[in-house]
Amino acid sequence: MSRAVTSLTNPTVKSVRALHLRKERDASGLFVAEGLKIVTEAVELGHAPRILMYGKDAEGHPLLKRAIQATQAARGEVIEVTHEILAKVSRRDNPQAVVAVFAQGYTSLTELKPQSAPCFVALHRVRDPGNLGTIIRTADAAGCGAVILVGECCDPYSVEAVRATMGSIFAVPIVKASEAEFAGWRSNWPGSVVGTLLTATVDHRQATYAKPAMVLMGNEQQGLTPEMAALCDVNVKIPMRGRADSLNLSVATGIMIYAAT
Amino acid sequence: MSRAVTSLTNPTVKSVRALHLRKERDASGLFVAEGLKIVTEAVELGHAPRILMYGKDAEGHPLLKRAIQATQAARGEVIEVTHEILAKVSRRDNPQAVVAVFAQGYTSLTELKPQSAPCFVALHRVRDPGNLGTIIRTADAAGCGAVILVGECCDPYSVEAVRATMGSIFAVPIVKASEAEFAGWRSNWPGSVVGTLLTATVDHRQATYAKPAMVLMGNEQQGLTPEMAALCDVNVKIPMRGRADSLNLSVATGIMIYAAT
Repeated sequence: MSRAVTSLTNPTVKSVRALHLRKERDASGLFVAEGLKIVTEAVELGHAPRILMYGKDAEGHPLLKRAIQATQAARGEVIEVTHEILAKVSRRDNPQAVVAVFAQGYTSLTELKPQSAPCFVALHRVRDPGNLGTIIRTADAAGCGAVILVGECCDPYSVEAVRATMGSIFAVPIVKASEAEFAGWRSNWPGSVVGTLLTATVDHRQATYAKPAMVLMGNEQQGLTPEMAALCDVNVKIPMRGRADSLNLSVATGIMIYAAT
Repeated sequence: MSRAVTSLTNPTVKSVRALHLRKERDASGLFVAEGLKIVTEAVELGHAPRILMYGKDAEGHPLLKRAIQATQAARGEVIEVTHEILAKVSRRDNPQAVVAVFAQGYTSLTELKPQSAPCFVALHRVRDPGNLGTIIRTADAAGCGAVILVGECCDPYSVEAVRATMGSIFAVPIVKASEAEFAGWRSNWPGSVVGTLLTATVDHRQATYAKPAMVLMGNEQQGLTPEMAALCDVNVKIPMRGRADSLNLSVATGIMIYAAT
């Protein structure tokens, strides 16, 4: 059975709100996902919520019942909450009627199977959570084997990033690696590693993407560093024909992923 | 000479803050752009600010001097403001040191020259200003001739959209058209019109993009409506190989633009 909570000072509510802070996410290994559709997809992929909060609007929905069962079967906590609590937890005036807390799940470099997918994505020092979430969504849609976060990146488990993944955070293996770990691991990579560089001379469609292809992208401000560009078999450029001298990182990564697959 | 303003109730400051509301932007035909880099690009493209606000951090910068000259030459208003005013005007804790107000500039369908560019972009009922701004940036980078907003779309001149364009709002012609106007005008389009549809069977890379190619995209929720899909020479799909059943609109549009050019 679920219980009803109306107070913003309820300990569970406070613990969920605290997950807006990276410090709290890192310490607890938890994160927040919003919306019945995404929570249902998580449950279908075998991820049971640790905490499931829902508002009046969701009550009685058959998908909610399944999510409640999955949460309770995994000894998670189910609470019915007010619209005000949902709004505070989501930091939105119009919150989703279902908000859930899940365990983060990183994959290690050594667990990756290069032959399991035609394409992998590596991002160096990506900064913007919206970009990162959108890239995880694209990687999922294109059937990529993993998204590898190299060096200090923004948090894929922030509310903003998770929102942009539209549920793909539960489907795509996410890896964290230091620059040195990535460089060492890359030396045994069986396919091609293709970097995107504004100063490259090879068009992104002329390059050979030997499978499995790894697409390596630099960050929003500087692009690939010389050290990271040197790890690639080839550096390519997406042609710029107008006044703008660069693309949004998630758009550029999407173009590269689809060029590679 | 510029004057210093420190009060949030100053009429100019209030008028700039009001431009966060679409109603005020529509009524005044004005919009806000942030950052010295973008304001400089606007000036270089012949757009003088109606109002130029700058903070202490920007003072003395040679590019600011040029922007001030351009503003004053066009009889615009130049004011030095506090960090607090910049934060309020930008709705950001860390605002840019320069914020300017410009006149909106729509192009009409009849002004477009199809032969002027290899690719044009049409968006039907696009909703998210971040997506719209990112698409305008991509269109600029790829050398597209215009971004055509068909039906009721979000405002390309909202602060959020303009931010995402990274200055391309000043470089790419923006057109607004009703569905009927677009359909009528499209009947004389000399090149191909390619729509993206999840249910299409043609791969986006197999289609023929006769120049000038027009890429037509539906909105974030529903994709292309049957009426809009029927206006296309061919409907194509970007293959979905994973669990996610769609791409972010700005990513999908970027992939289509680069497939067409």
